[in-house]
Amino acid sequence: MNPDKSEYNYKPQKNPILNKIYQIIYFSDTKAGKFFDVALLVLILLSTALVMLETVSLINIKYHHLFFIVQLVITILFSIEYALRIFTIKNKKSYIFSPLGIIDFISITPFYLSLIFPVLHFFVIIRMLRMMRIFRIFNLADYQQDGTYILKALRESSRKIYIFLLFLVVFIVIIGSCMYVIEGGKNGFSSIPQSIYWAVVTITTVGYGDISPATAGGKFLSILVMLCGYSIIAVPTGIVTSQFRKQTKSGKSCDRCGNKENDKDARFCKICGEKIV
Amino acid sequence: MNPDKSEYNYKPQKNPILNKIYQIIYFSDTKAGKFFDVALLVLILLSTALVMLETVSLINIKYHHLFFIVQLVITILFSIEYALRIFTIKNKKSYIFSPLGIIDFISITPFYLSLIFPVLHFFVIIRMLRMMRIFRIFNLADYQQDGTYILKALRESSRKIYIFLLFLVVFIVIIGSCMYVIEGGKNGFSSIPQSIYWAVVTITTVGYGDISPATAGGKFLSILVMLCGYSIIAVPTGIVTSQFRKQTKSGKSCDRCGNKENDKDARFCKICGEKIV
Amino acid sequence: MNPDKSEYNYKPQKNPILNKIYQIIYFSDTKAGKFFDVALLVLILLSTALVMLETVSLINIKYHHLFFIVQLVITILFSIEYALRIFTIKNKKSYIFSPLGIIDFISITPFYLSLIFPVLHFFVIIRMLRMMRIFRIFNLADYQQDGTYILKALRESSRKIYIFLLFLVVFIVIIGSCMYVIEGGKNGFSSIPQSIYWAVVTITTVGYGDISPATAGGKFLSILVMLCGYSIIAVPTGIVTSQFRKQTKSGKSCDRCGNKENDKDARFCKICGEKIV
Amino acid sequence: MNPDKSEYNYKPQKNPILNKIYQIIYFSDTKAGKFFDVALLVLILLSTALVMLETVSLINIKYHHLFFIVQLVITILFSIEYALRIFTIKNKKSYIFSPLGIIDFISITPFYLSLIFPVLHFFVIIRMLRMMRIFRIFNLADYQQDGTYILKALRESSRKIYIFLLFLVVFIVIIGSCMYVIEGGKNGFSSIPQSIYWAVVTITTVGYGDISPATAGGKFLSILVMLCGYSIIAVPTGIVTSQFRKQTKSGKSCDRCGNKENDKDARFCKICGEKIV
Repeated sequence: MNPDKSEYNYKPQKNPILNKIYQIIYFSDTKAGKFFDVALLVLILLSTALVMLETVSLINIKYHHLFFIVQLVITILFSIEYALRIFTIKNKKSYIFSPLGIIDFISITPFYLSLIFPVLHFFVIIRMLRMMRIFRIFNLADYQQDGTYILKALRESSRKIYIFLLFLVVFIVIIGSCMYVIEGGKNGFSSIPQSIYWAVVTITTVGYGDISPATAGGKFLSILVMLCGYSIIAVPTGIVTSQFRKQTKSGKSCDRCGNKENDKDARFCKICGEKIV
Repeated sequence: MNPDKSEYNYKPQKNPILNKIYQIIYFSDTKAGKFFDVALLVLILLSTALVMLETVSLINIKYHHLFFIVQLVITILFSIEYALRIFTIKNKKSYIFSPLGIIDFISITPFYLSLIFPVLHFFVIIRMLRMMRIFRIFNLADYQQDGTYILKALRESSRKIYIFLLFLVVFIVIIGSCMYVIEGGKNGFSSIPQSIYWAVVTITTVGYGDISPATAGGKFLSILVMLCGYSIIAVPTGIVTSQFRKQTKSGKSCDRCGNKENDKDARFCKICGEKIV
Repeated sequence: MNPDKSEYNYKPQKNPILNKIYQIIYFSDTKAGKFFDVALLVLILLSTALVMLETVSLINIKYHHLFFIVQLVITILFSIEYALRIFTIKNKKSYIFSPLGIIDFISITPFYLSLIFPVLHFFVIIRMLRMMRIFRIFNLADYQQDGTYILKALRESSRKIYIFLLFLVVFIVIIGSCMYVIEGGKNGFSSIPQSIYWAVVTITTVGYGDISPATAGGKFLSILVMLCGYSIIAVPTGIVTSQFRKQTKSGKSCDRCGNKENDKDARFCKICGEKIV
Repeated sequence: MNPDKSEYNYKPQKNPILNKIYQIIYFSDTKAGKFFDVALLVLILLSTALVMLETVSLINIKYHHLFFIVQLVITILFSIEYALRIFTIKNKKSYIFSPLGIIDFISITPFYLSLIFPVLHFFVIIRMLRMMRIFRIFNLADYQQDGTYILKALRESSRKIYIFLLFLVVFIVIIGSCMYVIEGGKNGFSSIPQSIYWAVVTITTVGYGDISPATAGGKFLSILVMLCGYSIIAVPTGIVTSQFRKQTKSGKSCDRCGNKENDKDARFCKICGEKIV
């Protein structure tokens, strides 16, 4: 089953040509539909790459005209696609106001606006959000299972992670304030928010080094914080790992002995030998 | 059961109004009690945010008067709350000398003192400790289970982590001293405590870069230390993760002997041999 | 069984001397073969060390002539080995066009070419690739099992890790673009690719500090990114760990149907229901 | 059982006083023995702290005389202890040439030598090695179990970790060489050893930032290396964690059904209900 069909409230058009285009654009069941999906993805990645390279001044100066023309072509193609998407679907609102529909719209408009008001060219950057269409790859049967496996583990352990983050945030705020007091508002610890920034950089072991303790007291507290952070970094890992294990283990249960840890491909209970349906 | 009731040695007041206020302030069973708790939390977070922003000189210069007035109002509200807490509870000592009671007291006094001695304004920062009241959220049934789950895992594995930290500290001190000798007291390794600070920054993979080896020997030792640290970082994670797993698995209780520590896949009680459903 | 035998399409030479040399060079079954392998490994490591030291200008100036002579000797030995490898094997193409054969060839040629065109001396560095012969150690029975154990775990979990990396890359590109906009193309965030570099450095917790946020908005976003990264770092660990556990557990084979994937705690084959000892 | 007894080849002295001292110094069975152990540990920690503080020039200038006197007293006490250790033990060689005996000896001598040749004062630092006596704490029954639990997990998984480190080292050397070529020997990548140092700093996510890529190619390779490192950091964690789990799970086995996963305190098999001896 193609999840898209339910997603967009599937209602086939009566006009056979419209219906054909509708099928190609919205679904990847057919050969043409798959080709369209891949072509669109390539266009999106190309467009994203262009937006990136435009911000590199050396490259932009050299290829400015080329970039403009390619973006123009891509924008026109995106516009045609957007028009077709609206035109072919029956329940138009279901697309226009869906997250993907909104992203599609705000991916096109800034470019046209920038033709009139060049200042707005900056907003062409919004186009990068279309990149999220890449996750449509999860419709492919092979990857869908693994994708949902990861997402399920994160969702199941999210509440434990929230609580952990709550602990962490309070810990970070208190440590940050202590460092502000100890370093006396100097050496980069110029305010509590600044010191909190330092505490996050330290506990997550990023350690830019743009702010680092300079006094003996500050260094001593840092040592404690780092050793502490070293120990508690294990907590989210432990939560997620134990969740992964739980998912891997849960499978077919046996009616006779109640063993729930039979593999998914098991045909007999590994504990009592009973046949499993 | 509300854990607060036992915490504060619950003794209902005879005066019905006092008793009502007592219930609202100390417990969150009733609607009014819940509202009070949330309102207090908002006030605490607001007060914390103010203390933080006051340390940012640019903002403080602009809004100094506003900040003062809001802090004054908050402090008065906190004072009223503190007075009511003492007034309504029967066993006054149980609150005044409890950790939360002491924090509540030292959250109010610095502000009043700073009105007389402006130098003491700095100590208003202590107010941030009240933020720890946020952990009262664990009284909410939904979160309590997950919170205790994490705390239990940390407590159960704490002795193993202590031993690991002991190993680590000895390792760090020896590595730090070696680096002091190798770098010859130069390049930031100006003393052994300084070198130990470097060793902690390195082994926890924080890596500020405020001190980094400059000699060939120092760099070589650093490489060994980092690869070593890379391997031993797995130890606390392993300890905590295996503890989480253990907890996830243990659960079934026995009807006959009451043993609650049977594994989830157990079919007979490990203590009395009774069949478990 | 020596995996080499199949790897090189084992066909013994008729000439007994050629066959003897062939055995020694390609296999490590015999005493001489083992000695040859170790001697070759020592030569390769020596050659690698020389290439490294040559790039250290202080050392190179001092020992330039010594280095040249040793490299010359090693290159001649490597050439003899290469000639013997081609000469003694029957199916010459199977060696010459194998990855190891190509590496062996390009390890020798740059040195000879540099005798004629000194500019090419730089390419002697390619010789370091021969170091990969060290993985031949996995032919040793003791290590083979552990090596394949690790490789299997990585291969089995590779698809989950790919999907995770896909998520991560999209996340990184979007975060990088946001930081470019927020920091306004200043403070090192001079282009989107540059900002993406920063995002990778931050999320992987490397944190060089060559680029770090300077504005309040940038620092705030960084804090969110770091806390986020701190939580998702658990995902690859969880995937690999749960895979390791799975492998540790699977093992018992069934005598009747030959299924080898029964869990270690299985008492009946999950496929045919036969009792397992 | 006190592991010391076997360690030092226990042979009680005939002279009762000698035997008493021998018992106190070498064993912690008696009250006096425990007191001696603790007192010695305190002296060692004090001595270590002094050595550390002596290297901080500001403190050393101020308290130089005090430090000297305390070190003199400690050294004399250590000397007496050393003499008693030799004098009271029967098998003198078993102590003198044991690792601890050698450390004890080289902890004392540098100080005396420095009285004659002040230059040698530097070697007093060797005294810090005595700190390793802290691990004698594992003789305490409570901690011994947890200590050996960790050590066993590391030892059991050491071969897998060695193989992983071998992979890592080859990977690091190749990456380091690539960066040397890409960055063209500039921006801190002045030689291959230097680039290897960078590669280790990056892959272990320490990230000092003393060397960081400056060219576009170098940054691109760095991104790949960091994402790669992010994925493989999971491997040692996975190895150790799965080892911890394995140890936690293995316990009493059941004679009837063969289930090996009964807890250590189990009295009946959790699968078949059989009594376990």
